[in-house]
Amino acid sequence: AIVDAVEAALLDGPLKGKHVLVTSGPTHEPIDPVRYIANRSSGAQGTAIARSLAALGANVTFVTGPADVPPPLGVKVVKVQTASEMKEAVDAALPADAAVFAAAVADWRVANASGSKMKKDGSGNAPALEFTENPDILAGVSQMKKDRPKLVVGFAAETDDVQANATAKRKRKGCDWIVANDVSPETGIMGGSENAVTIISDEGAESWPRLTKDQVAAKIAAKIAGALA
Amino acid sequence: AIVDAVEAALLDGPLKGKHVLVTSGPTHEPIDPVRYIANRSSGAQGTAIARSLAALGANVTFVTGPADVPPPLGVKVVKVQTASEMKEAVDAALPADAAVFAAAVADWRVANASGSKMKKDGSGNAPALEFTENPDILAGVSQMKKDRPKLVVGFAAETDDVQANATAKRKRKGCDWIVANDVSPETGIMGGSENAVTIISDEGAESWPRLTKDQVAAKIAAKIAGALA
Repeated sequence: AIVDAVEAALLDGPLKGKHVLVTSGPTHEPIDPVRYIANRSSGAQGTAIARSLAALGANVTFVTGPADVPPPLGVKVVKVQTASEMKEAVDAALPADAAVFAAAVADWRVANASGSKMKKDGSGNAPALEFTENPDILAGVSQMKKDRPKLVVGFAAETDDVQANATAKRKRKGCDWIVANDVSPETGIMGGSENAVTIISDEGAESWPRLTKDQVAAKIAAKIAGALA
Repeated sequence: AIVDAVEAALLDGPLKGKHVLVTSGPTHEPIDPVRYIANRSSGAQGTAIARSLAALGANVTFVTGPADVPPPLGVKVVKVQTASEMKEAVDAALPADAAVFAAAVADWRVANASGSKMKKDGSGNAPALEFTENPDILAGVSQMKKDRPKLVVGFAAETDDVQANATAKRKRKGCDWIVANDVSPETGIMGGSENAVTIISDEGAESWPRLTKDQVAAKIAAKIAGALA
């Protein structure tokens, strides 16, 4: 009965009837069967955002790379490893009323990934790895001609000139908002429980104080509910 | 009182008074502040071996990369990220009566790792990564002229010609035993709870049936106790 009451309350939230897509976590790009390239993303912020959106009544599709934290309850979870798999899962999940791209997607993958474990050949030289650019999922969805989500939110994890880089990224990608944060190791944000973000939109930059990732998630979810209302 | 009794029992085990060094887990080699190269090692087998050795009374130093499983209780834990850090920790932990190198150490690191997040430059080309060979920890300890551990055990995670590759690796490195296993994705061994190993020594190859990693660990620890007796 408690579950039913909670569920009813959720269904009555401001995002009732809205489909929101959230991506989260890192991607892993294989080099060979035992090695891969990864990003230092725990998935904590994306997971918290998905949970907050579901708590406001949204129908959430959660596309996640191999994250450290478990996915939230009450959302549709789609697990992927690579950027290419994430793009496929995003395409399959559309259309959506809003899309939040919190995943730390690898910009590049190894073009000549090996089906067998690469060996040292005694020369002291490493095997040459060739890289190729991954599909730009955020730009692709932001620039859809047809059925583009009403609201597209990107993330910018920067280590230098955070606001300038994030503002340029918003223009380049064509998304509505960029949630920018400073992931320099000394901030402790990547992998930590807190976040200090600046939201860049066509109205300018809005900086929030350092909050827990759950608090940041609740504020972002509320702002999304306002934008879709 | 129970703890004391257990401790007394442990101290009376066949490895009482022996110092055994165990390395475990993957290493992470940074590309820039948010990206790194990793190995698909959970640390499960190395952790189980350290636990089994401690249970036989050994004084265990456990040098571990960023593993998925927590380190065992009752051992001295040294946490590292990179192969270079692991080599330093191993050197600091010696001398030892036996050394078990179960870690999946990266063969290469990025020579030109960046202090700032690398950016796409719009050319579609990835930044050039230059690789350099990491120190060979197993070979270094196996070939020590002075104070070499009486028993040096290496691991070979192979995907092809497992026994031939492992036998060649034992000769090349100069270690006493190689614990070889097939980590092809279809075996489910890497990241899984079971292992099927072949022990290569100067007496030839000894293949064990597929067992849990805990069972493999118990057998390896018992074999080590026999060799040091």
